[in-house]
Amino acid sequence: MRQHGSWAKSFSLLAHFWLISSLIHHPKLHSQFMLHAVIMAGGSGTRFWPRSTEAHPKQFLNIFGDRTMLQSTVDRIKNLIPSERVWVITNQRYVDLVQEQLPDVPAGNIVGEPIAKNTAPCVALAATLIQDQDPDATMVVLPADHLVGEPSTFISILQTAAAKAADGQTLVTIGIKPSHPETGYGYIEFNEEISETHKGREVKKVNQFREKPDLETAKEFIDSGNFLWNSGMFVWKTSAIIKEFELHLPDIHEQIEDLQPTIGSEDQEEAISTFYHGCTSISIDYGIMEQAQNVFVVPGSFGWNDVGSWKAVYDLRSKDEHGNVILSDTSTLADSSNNLIQSESGKLIALVGVDNMAIVETDKAILVCELDNSQGVKKVVNQLRKDDKLKKYL
Amino acid sequence: MRQHGSWAKSFSLLAHFWLISSLIHHPKLHSQFMLHAVIMAGGSGTRFWPRSTEAHPKQFLNIFGDRTMLQSTVDRIKNLIPSERVWVITNQRYVDLVQEQLPDVPAGNIVGEPIAKNTAPCVALAATLIQDQDPDATMVVLPADHLVGEPSTFISILQTAAAKAADGQTLVTIGIKPSHPETGYGYIEFNEEISETHKGREVKKVNQFREKPDLETAKEFIDSGNFLWNSGMFVWKTSAIIKEFELHLPDIHEQIEDLQPTIGSEDQEEAISTFYHGCTSISIDYGIMEQAQNVFVVPGSFGWNDVGSWKAVYDLRSKDEHGNVILSDTSTLADSSNNLIQSESGKLIALVGVDNMAIVETDKAILVCELDNSQGVKKVVNQLRKDDKLKKYL
Repeated sequence: MRQHGSWAKSFSLLAHFWLISSLIHHPKLHSQFMLHAVIMAGGSGTRFWPRSTEAHPKQFLNIFGDRTMLQSTVDRIKNLIPSERVWVITNQRYVDLVQEQLPDVPAGNIVGEPIAKNTAPCVALAATLIQDQDPDATMVVLPADHLVGEPSTFISILQTAAAKAADGQTLVTIGIKPSHPETGYGYIEFNEEISETHKGREVKKVNQFREKPDLETAKEFIDSGNFLWNSGMFVWKTSAIIKEFELHLPDIHEQIEDLQPTIGSEDQEEAISTFYHGCTSISIDYGIMEQAQNVFVVPGSFGWNDVGSWKAVYDLRSKDEHGNVILSDTSTLADSSNNLIQSESGKLIALVGVDNMAIVETDKAILVCELDNSQGVKKVVNQLRKDDKLKKYL
Repeated sequence: MRQHGSWAKSFSLLAHFWLISSLIHHPKLHSQFMLHAVIMAGGSGTRFWPRSTEAHPKQFLNIFGDRTMLQSTVDRIKNLIPSERVWVITNQRYVDLVQEQLPDVPAGNIVGEPIAKNTAPCVALAATLIQDQDPDATMVVLPADHLVGEPSTFISILQTAAAKAADGQTLVTIGIKPSHPETGYGYIEFNEEISETHKGREVKKVNQFREKPDLETAKEFIDSGNFLWNSGMFVWKTSAIIKEFELHLPDIHEQIEDLQPTIGSEDQEEAISTFYHGCTSISIDYGIMEQAQNVFVVPGSFGWNDVGSWKAVYDLRSKDEHGNVILSDTSTLADSSNNLIQSESGKLIALVGVDNMAIVETDKAILVCELDNSQGVKKVVNQLRKDDKLKKYL
């Protein structure tokens, strides 16, 4: 009996190893533990012109150090989600650039959009691709060009969100505790009475999403205490989000169904092109989040910044005694304060009586711009787009 | 008799030709008709940095067209004073540049100052050199970097000034009828009761010179009606000004006396160096004009501008519908008005929410400066002078 018992024990151990090994090597069996990251890297980054250009939008620039914003986005989550489960959806023209910047991400995980259709089709495509590999996967949707000052807090918040999303019913979003009545962000109103705790953090039921408010409304939001900034980061099971597409964006859901059988086949690339051309252009916020019933939010503070204007770069950098941020080899200033100066040309930048401005020189252009006037930069970029003679400056 | 009469007539004619020929070829006999121009071209033009540099100050730049300011100064007077009677006093380092820009001016008329000693020594030197050639000469002192919009009026004013100066006693200055209470210029107060007319224009006795006033004082000047802007242009006989040096700047007069015997000799160059090292550094206004008794002024309006700041360039150029002066190959503007943009690099200059600024790019530097803050530009230039690492940008 002892002998037999020992054999049985060995067999059980072997079976156990086989099972674990299967789980590791066969993702479809292992999916309930599996987090995938979907990085949306299709932006054209107009608000950072002239540093960001059509050839090198913001997410591909190293605005804050050695690593680009895309690389930092992947670095930040690498202990939670390894490169082989990172997916990058970008514009077709940037696929090579993404592969170059993220050599550890499998080539098959980098998908080029043939045409920009806002975020909903991008999320639908990613969910479809991931679900094919891993039907029970949870996906974390992250913009490629946000800054996170406290990565460990951020990871802990993602884990809470993933724990809540594990119910397979819920769309979870990350909300930023607001520091001031910002008019440049959308807001999330949560229900103060419906709260759960997952992995040591609160998860709140969302009442509604609110578009970018005017200042007065933003102040009311802050005063009411149950509004958060919409970070544009989401966590959900692929099955959950695909179900929501079926409910709220049936046209896109039809495209998903047409795409599914082609995945992994030689027709996949053409099918993705058909998918994009067939999809409505709509944001995931407007198309799904604002419509869905079962939306939760994890509130957090983790040094988040969407780096949406030169002002953000200014705010995040250290200043001299006159409040100037000088990212330039040589400069000299007289009666000038609170400016951002960026240049790599070696030219001397001299300011006289200049306040609250961004002065940015690249090899193509010189921008002089009110520091927080990102709309104005957009206007300039639109002027360049419209003028055939000026397009080369984009 | 007829024969004899005819011979006498011929002889008389010949003698007449000989006399005229002497007058032409012997300037010392012809001097009372002779106007000489002395162009002061030693300025370092700091207020136009970075377009004006130590190697190429303002007077050597073509800020307003094909010809440089120095060339335009000579062009403007060429029907009154031909090149052979034009003298240019400049810094030693610019002598070759002056000769290059003014090939018709005799090399001997271009004098390099070994050391900058303000305007009084410059005038003393010029007067000494001219008087040696032409003891009864009248000299017109002109800055090399002023703009004259109405040259024919200007010439007529110079003729009036020269006619008054012909008395050999008077120092004549050109005063500009003020258009506004400018605080950037010195003023000349004239006596309303003592007036003469020469060549159809009024000449007024000067009461006093006044330094740059504050705004309130400038307004009083304008209201009083007998104040003119000091243009820094003067007309006098060389003998008259040398007499004034003897009276008011005897130290410099001693230097004149030491210099005189060396002129035309091989010792001249060294003597000029000794002269400059021996002279006090003082302006002709402060050293002579404010002290002298017999000073007259010809009031005039001839589109004069001393082009003392980027604002002057702005004022003198045509504007687009938003009041911007664009001297750049390519630019694009959003919500920006009343700016001056100057660049030749081919880079796109983009402005967002920028008003009343000068944006000037050269191959060495980029200046962003309040349009009328010429003091600030000076401050920048002084900072560059003080910093060994930044000197190369001057």
